[in-house]
Amino acid sequence: MAADFPHQYEVSLRLDDASRAEGTVSTPDGPSVPVGPPPQFDGRPGHRSPEDLLLAAVATCQMTTALALLRRRGLPLRDYRSVATGTLEKTPEGLRFTAIRLRIAVVTEPGREAAVERVVNAAESFCIVTAALRPPIELELSVSAGE
Amino acid sequence: MAADFPHQYEVSLRLDDASRAEGTVSTPDGPSVPVGPPPQFDGRPGHRSPEDLLLAAVATCQMTTALALLRRRGLPLRDYRSVATGTLEKTPEGLRFTAIRLRIAVVTEPGREAAVERVVNAAESFCIVTAALRPPIELELSVSAGE
Repeated sequence: MAADFPHQYEVSLRLDDASRAEGTVSTPDGPSVPVGPPPQFDGRPGHRSPEDLLLAAVATCQMTTALALLRRRGLPLRDYRSVATGTLEKTPEGLRFTAIRLRIAVVTEPGREAAVERVVNAAESFCIVTAALRPPIELELSVSAGE
Repeated sequence: MAADFPHQYEVSLRLDDASRAEGTVSTPDGPSVPVGPPPQFDGRPGHRSPEDLLLAAVATCQMTTALALLRRRGLPLRDYRSVATGTLEKTPEGLRFTAIRLRIAVVTEPGREAAVERVVNAAESFCIVTAALRPPIELELSVSAGE
């Protein structure tokens, strides 16, 4: 059950290396995450970029939402994988994400494919990260049955 | 220098534990991040939630953008810390982030406070994550001078 609303979420960021704009993100209850610019903006490997973090938020929100809905309907899930891609382009307003695409591959049990596909598709409208974003999420979903 | 545009960013997500909706986010060049629902939605500690990841993206984007602008202007930076908070509420449209606030504390050198404040404030309009979000970011900035 979800905690009472409204929920408050909080994340702290501390600068580690000003010359490279690298820092550490932390929350009260989780592992720290080293962050910095992506390689596309001269960042070093080993750090999560803002672009990565945004796509990770989209992919994770879709998965946790879909799994909560599947569980509520008693629909079986064998596997769930996804790849989120974002396209950053120069526009008249400046640099903007012009497209965010989420490719999802789900494995369920034989005979449940159609029901699972409906629920995973529906999860997008309940995902709070997708709802907070301007660029529409292009969803590409494949559902198959395991043994 | 930034790589030629458009940029493509990609993140993969793999399910680890279907019963708890937990998985692992990875990219070609960075450390993996364990992800799952937040404690507010019955998640276990030790995982980054979609809510955390979104706030981390906002805080990191603002920092990397501000530092790039400060460097370009030759403005000195001694320290940069921020705290991002998000409020998730029930609305007629469903659960939504109704506010995202970013409190930033910056330390520069004596006499450069006003110039640094202008640049860090201006960074918000160049931040690609902020630009991708619907809820407006409430910025609260304090600039002080170190020794």
